[in-house]
Amino acid sequence: MGTQAAVKGLRNEALEELGAEIILANTYHLYLRPGHELVRKLGGLHQFMSWPRAILTDSGGYQVFSLSELRKITDDGVRFRSHLDGSEHLLTPEKAAEIQLALGSDIAMVLDECIETPAPREQWQFGIVQGATFGDLRRESARQLIELDFPGYAVGGLAVGEPHEVTCQMTAEVTALLPKDRPRYLMGVGRPEQIADYVALGIDMMDCVLPTRAARHACLYSSEGRVLIKNARYAQDQRPVDPKCTCSVCRRYSRAYLRHLFAAGELTAAILATHHNVHFYLDIMRQIREAIEFGNLTKFSSEMHVRYAAGPA
Amino acid sequence: MGTQAAVKGLRNEALEELGAEIILANTYHLYLRPGHELVRKLGGLHQFMSWPRAILTDSGGYQVFSLSELRKITDDGVRFRSHLDGSEHLLTPEKAAEIQLALGSDIAMVLDECIETPAPREQWQFGIVQGATFGDLRRESARQLIELDFPGYAVGGLAVGEPHEVTCQMTAEVTALLPKDRPRYLMGVGRPEQIADYVALGIDMMDCVLPTRAARHACLYSSEGRVLIKNARYAQDQRPVDPKCTCSVCRRYSRAYLRHLFAAGELTAAILATHHNVHFYLDIMRQIREAIEFGNLTKFSSEMHVRYAAGPA
Repeated sequence: MGTQAAVKGLRNEALEELGAEIILANTYHLYLRPGHELVRKLGGLHQFMSWPRAILTDSGGYQVFSLSELRKITDDGVRFRSHLDGSEHLLTPEKAAEIQLALGSDIAMVLDECIETPAPREQWQFGIVQGATFGDLRRESARQLIELDFPGYAVGGLAVGEPHEVTCQMTAEVTALLPKDRPRYLMGVGRPEQIADYVALGIDMMDCVLPTRAARHACLYSSEGRVLIKNARYAQDQRPVDPKCTCSVCRRYSRAYLRHLFAAGELTAAILATHHNVHFYLDIMRQIREAIEFGNLTKFSSEMHVRYAAGPA
Repeated sequence: MGTQAAVKGLRNEALEELGAEIILANTYHLYLRPGHELVRKLGGLHQFMSWPRAILTDSGGYQVFSLSELRKITDDGVRFRSHLDGSEHLLTPEKAAEIQLALGSDIAMVLDECIETPAPREQWQFGIVQGATFGDLRRESARQLIELDFPGYAVGGLAVGEPHEVTCQMTAEVTALLPKDRPRYLMGVGRPEQIADYVALGIDMMDCVLPTRAARHACLYSSEGRVLIKNARYAQDQRPVDPKCTCSVCRRYSRAYLRHLFAAGELTAAILATHHNVHFYLDIMRQIREAIEFGNLTKFSSEMHVRYAAGPA
């Protein structure tokens, strides 16, 4: 997750070391600051942030909904005020497409279910299935988008507070209909133990602030469950965060040292913790691919649920 | 500068890449948190923070003076309250030596001009010349310390607000007396354009929070002077911070991108800026060594003063 054209706490060099292949940058944030026209002028987002691998941009719609003020939805689009300076803006489906084109995104998202501009040649534009927690609306939305023949489909408006079972149920309604040869992207998920469930339902792509945000709040992930590293029990613990982990943080630093860095409020705490958590998430996907190959996905999923149901260590 | 056993914003891997050979860790801070006994138990500071190169520790005296409350100096030592939790502590010369021994420091500092414990075999203990801005007191302090035959000598109590000329004058009084075959360490300096002056006066070692702290405040150093990267003039500047710099930040990221990261409050801004500034400082020392070899030190020094006198770019 690289909301403002940076993954919080990680240099691109670290992301490359970790094997990250796509980052998600945020249309709403970059439109407001530094501005999509500036980014275009400086050669697009890849050059601006020096990231040669893939960039996915969302449509900005979700942030208009969650961050901005004075939101007014009309037939044309959505009128809102910037959360930064209160300035007024109009986001239309055309504008969302234009901004993402200016950013030079590889995978763009439509503002809503209705697309009116053709996708530019070198950019994939995904349609987004909506419909809240109503199975019939989800199916109808999916059918309409399938008719528009997108190169990929996102499932939006989930993971906004509903129970995990409902997220899975709605996802299943949709993935049953979407073409199997197009990537399916479940937006804004998920917790470590949920990832395999979504993959089992036919999801190929996900995005989530959780690994980076949890890291900054001293919540680390391990193969045994959550490690709340500020806990006093780690004060003298010389083991790495996750003894089974091969990341460069676990190869070098102890729990005792990481705990000290968080207790002391050191910037380096966030850097090391973020690095580990992003590695952990990418590794979940590697393990899932392996589990699929060996027919073990269900077993992997239930083991993750057991480890993470126990609550933080 | 690794006050709390970490250089703010840099992993040890980055410090190694930059060629840093010594880090300074702070006795006062580590005594209070996580505690020197804990660090000893975990194998000493080198192992605790996974830093195999040299570690210098100060005596803690300066921080007792600048950070703690209810300071009371007696014949035995100094009684103070922790700035963290108000707990009361007594720091004596013996205690300062004991803490630094527990930390496993390579180069320790005495608490004041009077040393009462022998330095352990594998640890260098430096005496510290004091005497405020009085030449006669400085000379007397130096003479007494020279009699105690330290493996190295620090010059303390300077760079605390007096003009640069006075710092130089006091340093010169002392370095004229100190044995030439022992390292001389001027504590707490300095600005980029001052470093060469101190070296010209016979100083071998310095420490300073400036490169890391300035970086976090968006002040970057370049061969042309200071670059206050938040300035609007850099919004579209595709050049690196310092076109002459070879660091991994200048090789990859533009001023425009760094400006954006600072404007957006991104954690990665501090990481990249700190990396560059530490490289810049280490590079000053490399350039000074070269200038000495070619007999150009005075020229180098005056050029630096000209560039940095002009004020921020």
